[in-house]
Amino acid sequence: MAFELYYWDGIQGRGEFIRLALELAGADYVDVTREPHRGTDEMMQIINSSSEAHIPFAPPFLKDDGQIVSHVANILFYLGPKLRLAPESDELRWFANGLQLTLTDFVAEVHDTHHPIATSKYYEDQKEEAKARSLEFVKNRLPKFLGYFERVLKQNPAHAGYLVGHDLTYVDLSMFQVIEGLIYAFPKAMSHYEIRYAGLAQLHGLVKSKSTIAAYLASPRRLAFNENGIFRRYAELDIEP
Amino acid sequence: MAFELYYWDGIQGRGEFIRLALELAGADYVDVTREPHRGTDEMMQIINSSSEAHIPFAPPFLKDDGQIVSHVANILFYLGPKLRLAPESDELRWFANGLQLTLTDFVAEVHDTHHPIATSKYYEDQKEEAKARSLEFVKNRLPKFLGYFERVLKQNPAHAGYLVGHDLTYVDLSMFQVIEGLIYAFPKAMSHYEIRYAGLAQLHGLVKSKSTIAAYLASPRRLAFNENGIFRRYAELDIEP
Repeated sequence: MAFELYYWDGIQGRGEFIRLALELAGADYVDVTREPHRGTDEMMQIINSSSEAHIPFAPPFLKDDGQIVSHVANILFYLGPKLRLAPESDELRWFANGLQLTLTDFVAEVHDTHHPIATSKYYEDQKEEAKARSLEFVKNRLPKFLGYFERVLKQNPAHAGYLVGHDLTYVDLSMFQVIEGLIYAFPKAMSHYEIRYAGLAQLHGLVKSKSTIAAYLASPRRLAFNENGIFRRYAELDIEP
Repeated sequence: MAFELYYWDGIQGRGEFIRLALELAGADYVDVTREPHRGTDEMMQIINSSSEAHIPFAPPFLKDDGQIVSHVANILFYLGPKLRLAPESDELRWFANGLQLTLTDFVAEVHDTHHPIATSKYYEDQKEEAKARSLEFVKNRLPKFLGYFERVLKQNPAHAGYLVGHDLTYVDLSMFQVIEGLIYAFPKAMSHYEIRYAGLAQLHGLVKSKSTIAAYLASPRRLAFNENGIFRRYAELDIEP
Protein backbone atom coordinates (compact mmCIF):
# COMPACT_ATOMS: atom_id res chain seq x y z
CA MET A 1 0.00 0.00 0.00
CA ALA A 2 1.25 3.49 -0.83
CA PHE A 3 2.42 5.80 1.94
CA GLU A 4 0.04 8.73 2.34
CA LEU A 5 1.66 12.08 3.05
CA TYR A 6 -0.55 14.86 4.41
CA TYR A 7 0.70 18.42 4.15
CA TRP A 8 -0.48 21.87 3.04
CA ASP A 9 -0.75 22.21 -0.71
CA GLY A 10 1.05 25.05 -2.49
CA ILE A 11 4.27 25.16 -0.49
CA GLN A 12 7.34 23.00 0.06
CA GLY A 13 7.23 23.69 3.79
CA ARG A 14 7.97 20.95 6.29
CA GLY A 15 6.43 18.38 3.95
CA GLU A 16 9.45 18.69 1.68
CA PHE A 17 11.73 16.88 4.12
CA ILE A 18 9.48 13.84 3.81
CA ARG A 19 9.06 14.17 0.04
CA LEU A 20 12.81 14.19 -0.54
CA ALA A 21 13.21 10.91 1.35
CA LEU A 22 10.27 9.26 -0.45
CA GLU A 23 11.52 10.49 -3.81
CA LEU A 24 15.13 9.40 -3.36
CA ALA A 25 13.96 5.95 -2.31
CA GLY A 26 11.56 5.74 -5.25
CA ALA A 27 8.81 4.90 -2.76
CA ASP A 28 5.18 4.53 -3.69
CA TYR A 29 3.43 7.50 -2.08
CA VAL A 30 0.46 9.79 -2.41
CA ASP A 31 0.64 13.51 -1.64
CA VAL A 32 -2.95 13.57 -0.46
CA THR A 33 -3.86 17.27 -0.59
CA ARG A 34 -2.51 17.54 -4.15
CA GLU A 35 -4.56 14.61 -5.45
CA PRO A 36 -7.37 15.60 -7.85
CA HIS A 37 -10.13 13.72 -6.02
CA ARG A 38 -8.88 14.19 -2.51
CA GLY A 39 -7.48 17.42 -1.04
CA THR A 40 -7.03 19.55 2.07
CA ASP A 41 -10.49 18.76 3.47
CA GLU A 42 -9.48 15.17 3.95
CA MET A 43 -6.43 16.30 5.93
CA MET A 44 -8.45 18.66 8.09
CA GLN A 45 -10.99 15.94 8.82
CA ILE A 46 -8.25 13.85 10.41
CA ILE A 47 -6.83 16.78 12.37
CA ASN A 48 -10.27 17.85 13.61
CA SER A 49 -11.63 14.36 14.12
CA SER A 50 -13.44 13.77 17.39
CA SER A 51 -13.12 10.00 17.15
CA GLU A 52 -9.63 9.32 15.75
CA ALA A 53 -7.39 7.95 18.54
CA HIS A 54 -4.11 9.36 17.25
CA ILE A 55 -4.89 12.87 16.06
CA PRO A 56 -1.91 14.93 14.88
CA PHE A 57 -1.47 18.52 16.09
CA ALA A 58 -0.50 19.78 12.63
CA PRO A 59 0.77 18.63 9.24
CA PRO A 60 2.92 17.02 8.03
CA PHE A 61 1.79 13.58 9.03
CA LEU A 62 2.05 10.21 7.36
CA LYS A 63 -0.44 7.41 7.15
CA ASP A 64 0.99 3.97 6.64
CA ASP A 65 -1.47 1.11 6.73
CA GLY A 66 -3.54 2.66 9.53
CA GLN A 67 -0.61 4.03 11.52
CA ILE A 68 -0.51 7.83 11.75
CA VAL A 69 2.94 9.33 12.40
CA SER A 70 3.29 13.08 12.89
CA HIS A 71 6.21 15.55 13.03
CA VAL A 72 9.01 15.57 10.47
CA ALA A 73 11.69 13.99 12.68
CA ASN A 74 9.29 11.29 13.86
CA ILE A 75 8.15 10.47 10.32
CA LEU A 76 11.75 10.22 9.11
CA PHE A 77 12.77 8.10 12.11
CA TYR A 78 9.85 5.81 11.23
CA LEU A 79 10.40 5.79 7.47
CA GLY A 80 14.21 5.70 7.51
CA PRO A 81 14.67 1.92 7.82
CA LYS A 82 11.76 1.20 5.44
CA LEU A 83 13.32 3.44 2.76
CA ARG A 84 16.86 2.23 3.50
CA LEU A 85 17.78 5.79 4.41
CA ALA A 86 18.57 5.18 8.08
CA PRO A 87 21.98 4.23 9.47
CA GLU A 88 22.49 0.50 10.11
CA SER A 89 23.18 0.57 13.84
CA ASP A 90 20.89 1.67 16.65
CA GLU A 91 23.66 3.86 18.03
CA LEU A 92 23.81 5.83 14.80
CA ARG A 93 20.01 5.98 14.55
CA TRP A 94 19.79 7.80 17.89
CA PHE A 95 22.50 10.15 16.71
CA ALA A 96 20.69 10.74 13.40
CA ASN A 97 17.47 11.55 15.24
CA GLY A 98 19.31 14.06 17.40
CA LEU A 99 20.68 15.75 14.28
CA GLN A 100 17.25 15.79 12.66
CA LEU A 101 15.84 17.48 15.78
CA THR A 102 18.57 20.11 15.58
CA LEU A 103 17.52 20.72 11.97
CA THR A 104 13.92 20.98 13.21
CA ASP A 105 14.94 23.76 15.62
CA PHE A 106 16.95 25.47 12.89
CA VAL A 107 13.92 25.46 10.56
CA ALA A 108 11.66 26.83 13.32
CA GLU A 109 14.10 29.71 13.77
CA VAL A 110 14.05 30.38 10.02
CA HIS A 111 10.25 30.56 10.20
CA ASP A 112 10.40 33.02 13.08
CA THR A 113 12.65 35.41 11.12
CA HIS A 114 9.51 36.50 9.24
CA HIS A 115 7.00 35.73 12.03
CA PRO A 116 8.66 36.69 15.32
CA ILE A 117 5.49 37.90 17.04
CA ALA A 118 2.42 36.04 15.80
CA THR A 119 1.85 33.21 13.34
CA SER A 120 -1.76 34.36 13.20
CA LYS A 121 -0.77 37.75 11.74
CA TYR A 122 0.64 38.80 8.38
CA TYR A 123 4.33 39.37 7.87
CA GLU A 124 3.54 43.00 7.07
CA ASP A 125 2.21 43.46 10.61
CA GLN A 126 5.50 42.41 12.21
CA LYS A 127 8.01 43.70 9.69
CA GLU A 128 10.12 45.76 12.09
CA GLU A 129 10.41 42.93 14.58
CA ALA A 130 11.20 40.58 11.69
CA LYS A 131 14.15 42.78 10.72
CA ALA A 132 15.51 42.66 14.27
CA ARG A 133 15.07 38.90 14.47
CA SER A 134 16.64 38.38 11.03
CA LEU A 135 19.68 40.40 12.05
CA GLU A 136 20.14 38.13 15.08
CA PHE A 137 19.59 35.12 12.82
CA VAL A 138 22.18 35.93 10.17
CA LYS A 139 24.72 37.23 12.70
CA ASN A 140 24.50 34.55 15.39
CA ARG A 141 22.14 31.68 14.76
CA LEU A 142 22.89 30.79 11.12
CA PRO A 143 26.67 30.50 11.69
CA LYS A 144 26.10 28.63 14.93
CA PHE A 145 23.93 25.99 13.28
CA LEU A 146 25.95 25.67 10.06
CA GLY A 147 29.20 25.62 12.03
CA TYR A 148 27.82 22.78 14.12
CA PHE A 149 26.82 20.65 11.13
CA GLU A 150 30.18 21.31 9.46
CA ARG A 151 31.88 19.97 12.59
CA VAL A 152 29.61 16.92 12.61
CA LEU A 153 30.65 16.19 9.01
CA LYS A 154 34.34 16.61 9.79
CA GLN A 155 34.16 14.54 12.98
CA ASN A 156 32.25 11.67 11.40
CA PRO A 157 34.80 8.87 11.78
CA ALA A 158 33.60 7.34 8.50
CA HIS A 159 34.89 10.41 6.57
CA ALA A 160 32.55 9.59 3.72
CA GLY A 161 31.16 13.10 3.27
CA TYR A 162 27.87 12.26 5.00
CA LEU A 163 26.63 13.43 8.39
CA VAL A 164 26.11 9.96 9.86
CA GLY A 165 28.12 6.83 9.12
CA HIS A 166 29.33 5.61 5.73
CA ASP A 167 26.20 6.14 3.67
CA LEU A 168 23.68 8.78 2.76
CA THR A 169 20.80 9.03 5.26
CA TYR A 170 17.61 11.06 5.47
CA VAL A 171 19.51 13.60 7.60
CA ASP A 172 21.69 14.45 4.60
CA LEU A 173 18.58 15.06 2.50
CA SER A 174 17.17 17.41 5.14
CA MET A 175 20.50 19.23 5.37
CA PHE A 176 20.40 19.68 1.59
CA GLN A 177 16.90 21.13 1.80
CA VAL A 178 17.84 23.55 4.59
CA ILE A 179 20.83 24.81 2.56
CA GLU A 180 18.62 25.21 -0.54
CA GLY A 181 16.16 27.21 1.53
CA LEU A 182 18.81 29.39 3.14
CA ILE A 183 20.35 30.21 -0.24
CA TYR A 184 16.88 31.25 -1.39
CA ALA A 185 15.95 33.29 1.67
CA PHE A 186 19.27 34.78 2.76
CA PRO A 187 21.46 35.07 -0.35
CA LYS A 188 23.69 37.70 1.27
CA ALA A 189 24.40 35.66 4.38
CA MET A 190 24.91 32.55 2.23
CA SER A 191 27.18 34.11 -0.39
CA HIS A 192 30.52 32.30 -0.35
CA TYR A 193 29.11 29.90 2.24
CA GLU A 194 31.01 27.12 0.45
CA ILE A 195 34.28 28.61 1.66
CA ARG A 196 33.35 28.61 5.34
CA TYR A 197 31.38 25.37 5.18
CA ALA A 198 33.21 23.37 2.57
CA GLY A 199 31.93 20.01 3.80
CA LEU A 200 28.30 21.12 3.77
CA ALA A 201 28.68 22.62 0.29
CA GLN A 202 30.08 19.32 -0.96
CA LEU A 203 27.25 17.37 0.67
CA HIS A 204 24.72 19.75 -0.90
CA GLY A 205 26.21 19.15 -4.35
CA LEU A 206 26.34 15.42 -3.82
CA VAL A 207 22.64 15.20 -2.92
CA LYS A 208 21.66 17.48 -5.80
CA SER A 209 23.49 15.28 -8.29
CA LYS A 210 21.75 12.03 -7.27
CA SER A 211 19.75 11.05 -10.33
CA THR A 212 16.42 10.46 -8.52
CA ILE A 213 16.79 13.78 -6.69
CA ALA A 214 17.72 15.64 -9.88
CA ALA A 215 14.68 14.10 -11.60
CA TYR A 216 12.44 15.12 -8.71
CA LEU A 217 13.77 18.68 -8.61
CA ALA A 218 13.05 19.02 -12.32
CA SER A 219 9.53 17.57 -11.98
CA PRO A 220 6.29 19.49 -11.34
CA ARG A 221 6.09 17.73 -7.96
CA ARG A 222 8.85 20.04 -6.72
CA LEU A 223 7.15 23.37 -6.11
CA ALA A 224 9.26 26.53 -6.21
CA PHE A 225 10.09 28.36 -2.99
CA ASN A 226 7.56 31.12 -2.40
CA GLU A 227 6.50 33.70 0.19
CA ASN A 228 3.90 31.46 1.81
CA GLY A 229 6.46 28.90 2.89
CA ILE A 230 9.06 28.70 5.63
CA PHE A 231 11.96 29.99 3.56
CA ARG A 232 10.94 33.40 2.16
CA ARG A 233 12.91 35.96 0.24
CA TYR A 234 12.20 39.45 1.49
CA ALA A 235 14.84 41.98 0.40
CA GLU A 236 14.62 43.80 3.74
CA LEU A 237 15.37 40.62 5.73
CA ASP A 238 18.29 39.60 3.52
CA ILE A 239 20.71 41.35 5.80
CA GLU A 240 24.47 41.47 5.35
CA PRO A 241 25.78 39.69 8.47
CA MET B 1 26.31 2.02 35.19
CA ALA B 2 24.42 5.19 36.09
CA PHE B 3 22.84 7.33 33.38
CA GLU B 4 24.64 10.64 33.05
CA LEU B 5 22.43 13.67 32.41
CA TYR B 6 24.09 16.83 31.12
CA TYR B 7 22.21 20.09 31.47
CA TRP B 8 22.74 23.68 32.67
CA ASP B 9 22.95 23.98 36.43
CA GLY B 10 20.65 26.39 38.26
CA ILE B 11 17.46 25.95 36.27
CA GLN B 12 14.85 23.27 35.64
CA GLY B 13 14.82 24.06 31.93
CA ARG B 14 14.59 21.29 29.38
CA GLY B 15 16.58 18.98 31.65
CA GLU B 16 13.56 18.71 33.93
CA PHE B 17 11.64 16.55 31.44
CA ILE B 18 14.41 13.97 31.69
CA ARG B 19 14.78 14.27 35.47
CA LEU B 20 11.08 13.58 36.04
CA ALA B 21 11.30 10.34 34.07
CA LEU B 22 14.48 9.22 35.82
CA GLU B 23 13.03 10.12 39.23
CA LEU B 24 9.69 8.39 38.74
CA ALA B 25 11.48 5.24 37.63
CA GLY B 26 13.89 5.41 40.55
CA ALA B 27 16.74 5.16 38.04
CA ASP B 28 20.39 5.43 38.97
CA TYR B 29 21.55 8.72 37.43
CA VAL B 30 24.05 11.51 37.83
CA ASP B 31 23.17 15.15 37.15
CA VAL B 32 26.70 15.89 35.97
CA THR B 33 26.91 19.70 36.19
CA ARG B 34 25.55 19.63 39.75
CA GLU B 35 28.10 17.11 40.99
CA PRO B 36 30.68 18.54 43.41
CA HIS B 37 33.75 17.26 41.55
CA ARG B 38 32.42 17.56 38.04
CA GLY B 39 30.44 20.51 36.65
CA THR B 40 29.60 22.57 33.61
CA ASP B 41 33.15 22.48 32.20
CA GLU B 42 32.81 18.77 31.62
CA MET B 43 29.60 19.35 29.66
CA MET B 44 31.15 22.11 27.56
CA GLN B 45 34.14 19.91 26.76
CA ILE B 46 31.83 17.39 25.12
CA ILE B 47 29.91 20.08 23.23
CA ASN B 48 33.08 21.79 22.03
CA SER B 49 35.06 18.62 21.44
CA SER B 50 36.95 18.45 18.16
CA SER B 51 37.33 14.68 18.32
CA GLU B 52 34.02 13.34 19.69
CA ALA B 53 32.06 11.64 16.87
CA HIS B 54 28.58 12.40 18.19
CA ILE B 55 28.70 15.96 19.45
CA PRO B 56 25.40 17.42 20.67
CA PHE B 57 24.30 20.88 19.54
CA ALA B 58 23.11 21.86 23.01
CA PRO B 59 22.09 20.41 26.38
CA PRO B 60 20.27 18.41 27.54
CA PHE B 61 22.01 15.25 26.48
CA LEU B 62 22.38 11.85 28.06
CA LYS B 63 25.36 9.55 28.22
CA ASP B 64 24.59 5.90 28.66
CA ASP B 65 27.53 3.55 28.51
CA GLY B 66 29.27 5.52 25.75
CA GLN B 67 26.12 6.37 23.77
CA ILE B 68 25.33 10.09 23.63
CA VAL B 69 21.67 10.95 23.01
CA SER B 70 20.63 14.57 22.60
CA HIS B 71 17.30 16.47 22.51
CA VAL B 72 14.54 15.90 25.07
CA ALA B 73 12.20 13.91 22.82
CA ASN B 74 15.05 11.72 21.58
CA ILE B 75 16.33 11.06 25.10
CA LEU B 76 12.84 10.11 26.29
CA PHE B 77 12.23 7.91 23.24
CA TYR B 78 15.53 6.18 24.06
CA LEU B 79 14.99 5.96 27.83
CA GLY B 80 11.26 5.18 27.78
CA PRO B 81 11.52 1.39 27.38
CA LYS B 82 14.51 1.16 29.75
CA LEU B 83 12.57 3.01 32.47
CA ARG B 84 9.31 1.18 31.70
CA LEU B 85 7.74 4.53 30.87
CA ALA B 86 7.07 3.89 27.18
CA PRO B 87 3.91 2.34 25.76
CA GLU B 88 4.10 -1.39 25.05
CA SER B 89 3.39 -1.36 21.31
CA ASP B 90 5.43 0.21 18.53
CA GLU B 91 2.29 1.88 17.20
CA LEU B 92 1.79 3.72 20.48
CA ARG B 93 5.49 4.55 20.73
CA TRP B 94 5.37 6.46 17.45
CA PHE B 95 2.27 8.25 18.67
CA ALA B 96 3.96 9.09 21.99
CA ASN B 97 6.98 10.52 20.19
CA GLY B 98 4.70 12.70 18.07
CA LEU B 99 3.03 14.03 21.23
CA GLN B 100 6.40 14.66 22.86
CA LEU B 101 7.47 16.65 19.79
CA THR B 102 4.30 18.73 20.04
CA LEU B 103 5.23 19.45 23.67
CA THR B 104 8.72 20.39 22.44
CA ASP B 105 7.21 22.98 20.09
CA PHE B 106 4.92 24.24 22.86
CA VAL B 107 7.90 24.72 25.20
CA ALA B 108 9.87 26.55 22.48
CA GLU B 109 6.95 28.95 22.08
CA VAL B 110 6.89 29.54 25.84
CA HIS B 111 10.58 30.41 25.68
CA ASP B 112 9.98 32.86 22.87
CA THR B 113 7.35 34.75 24.87
CA HIS B 114 10.23 36.36 26.77
CA HIS B 115 12.82 36.13 23.98
CA PRO B 116 11.01 36.83 20.70
CA ILE B 117 13.90 38.65 19.01
CA ALA B 118 17.26 37.37 20.22
CA THR B 119 18.35 34.63 22.61
CA SER B 120 21.69 36.43 22.79
CA LYS B 121 20.09 39.53 24.32
CA TYR B 122 18.50 40.24 27.70
CA TYR B 123 14.78 40.09 28.21
CA GLU B 124 14.89 43.79 29.12
CA ASP B 125 16.12 44.57 25.58
CA GLN B 126 13.07 42.95 23.95
CA LYS B 127 10.38 43.71 26.50
CA GLU B 128 7.92 45.41 24.14
CA GLU B 129 8.15 42.62 21.57
CA ALA B 130 7.81 40.11 24.42
CA LYS B 131 4.51 41.71 25.42
CA ALA B 132 3.17 41.41 21.87
CA ARG B 133 4.30 37.80 21.56
CA SER B 134 2.87 36.92 25.01
CA LEU B 135 -0.48 38.37 24.03
CA GLU B 136 -0.53 36.13 20.96
CA PHE B 137 0.56 33.22 23.13
CA VAL B 138 -2.13 33.48 25.80
CA LYS B 139 -4.86 34.36 23.30
CA ASN B 140 -4.16 31.82 20.56
CA ARG B 141 -1.33 29.42 21.12
CA LEU B 142 -1.89 28.32 24.71
CA PRO B 143 -5.56 27.36 24.16
CA LYS B 144 -4.65 25.69 20.86
CA PHE B 145 -2.02 23.46 22.47
CA LEU B 146 -3.95 22.69 25.67
CA GLY B 147 -7.13 22.09 23.70
CA TYR B 148 -5.27 19.61 21.55
CA PHE B 149 -3.89 17.64 24.48
CA GLU B 150 -7.30 17.63 26.17
CA ARG B 151 -8.73 16.08 23.00
CA VAL B 152 -5.94 13.49 22.91
CA LEU B 153 -6.82 12.50 26.49
CA LYS B 154 -10.53 12.25 25.71
CA GLN B 155 -9.99 10.32 22.48
CA ASN B 156 -7.58 7.82 24.00
CA PRO B 157 -9.56 4.59 23.55
CA ALA B 158 -8.10 3.23 26.80
CA HIS B 159 -9.91 5.97 28.79
CA ALA B 160 -7.46 5.54 31.64
CA GLY B 161 -6.74 9.23 32.17
CA TYR B 162 -3.36 9.06 30.41
CA LEU B 163 -2.36 10.51 27.07
CA VAL B 164 -1.21 7.23 25.51
CA GLY B 165 -2.59 3.78 26.16
CA HIS B 166 -3.55 2.28 29.53
CA ASP B 167 -0.58 3.32 31.62
CA LEU B 168 1.41 6.35 32.59
CA THR B 169 4.19 7.19 30.09
CA TYR B 170 6.94 9.79 29.95
CA VAL B 171 4.59 11.98 27.86
CA ASP B 172 2.30 12.33 30.88
CA LEU B 173 5.25 13.45 33.00
CA SER B 174 6.21 16.08 30.41
CA MET B 175 2.60 17.27 30.22
CA PHE B 176 2.61 17.64 34.01
CA GLN B 177 5.79 19.72 33.85
CA VAL B 178 4.41 21.99 31.11
CA ILE B 179 1.26 22.64 33.16
CA GLU B 180 3.34 23.36 36.28
CA GLY B 181 5.40 25.82 34.26
CA LEU B 182 2.39 27.51 32.69
CA ILE B 183 0.73 27.97 36.09
CA TYR B 184 3.96 29.60 37.29
CA ALA B 185 4.50 31.84 34.24
CA PHE B 186 0.96 32.71 33.20
CA PRO B 187 -1.24 32.53 36.31
CA LYS B 188 -3.93 34.75 34.74
CA ALA B 189 -4.26 32.67 31.58
CA MET B 190 -4.18 29.48 33.65
CA SER B 191 -6.71 30.54 36.31
CA HIS B 192 -9.64 28.12 36.22
CA TYR B 193 -7.82 26.10 33.58
CA GLU B 194 -9.17 22.96 35.29
CA ILE B 195 -12.66 23.86 34.12
CA ARG B 196 -11.72 24.13 30.43
CA TYR B 197 -9.21 21.30 30.53
CA ALA B 198 -10.64 18.94 33.10
CA GLY B 199 -8.78 15.90 31.78
CA LEU B 200 -5.41 17.65 31.86
CA ALA B 201 -6.04 18.97 35.37
CA GLN B 202 -6.83 15.46 36.54
CA LEU B 203 -3.69 14.10 34.87
CA HIS B 204 -1.64 16.87 36.49
CA GLY B 205 -2.98 15.95 39.93
CA LEU B 206 -2.42 12.26 39.31
CA VAL B 207 1.25 12.74 38.41
CA LYS B 208 1.81 15.09 41.35
CA SER B 209 0.42 12.54 43.79
CA LYS B 210 2.72 9.69 42.70
CA SER B 211 4.88 9.00 45.75
CA THR B 212 8.23 9.09 43.93
CA ILE B 213 7.27 12.32 42.16
CA ALA B 214 6.01 13.91 45.41
CA ALA B 215 9.28 12.92 47.09
CA TYR B 216 11.29 14.39 44.22
CA LEU B 217 9.34 17.65 44.20
CA ALA B 218 9.99 18.03 47.94
CA SER B 219 13.70 17.26 47.57
CA PRO B 220 16.55 19.75 46.99
CA ARG B 221 17.05 18.14 43.57
CA ARG B 222 13.92 19.94 42.36
CA LEU B 223 14.98 23.53 41.83
CA ALA B 224 12.33 26.25 42.00
CA PHE B 225 11.18 27.97 38.80
CA ASN B 226 13.15 31.16 38.28
CA GLU B 227 13.71 33.95 35.76
CA ASN B 228 16.68 32.25 34.11
CA GLY B 229 14.62 29.29 32.97
CA ILE B 230 12.10 28.68 30.21
CA PHE B 231 9.00 29.38 32.30
CA ARG B 232 9.39 32.88 33.76
CA ARG B 233 6.99 34.98 35.75
CA TYR B 234 7.03 38.57 34.58
CA ALA B 235 3.99 40.55 35.72
CA GLU B 236 3.87 42.45 32.42
CA LEU B 237 3.72 39.24 30.36
CA ASP B 238 1.04 37.65 32.55
CA ILE B 239 -1.68 38.98 30.30
CA GLU B 240 -5.40 38.39 30.75
CA PRO B 241 -6.37 36.50 27.58
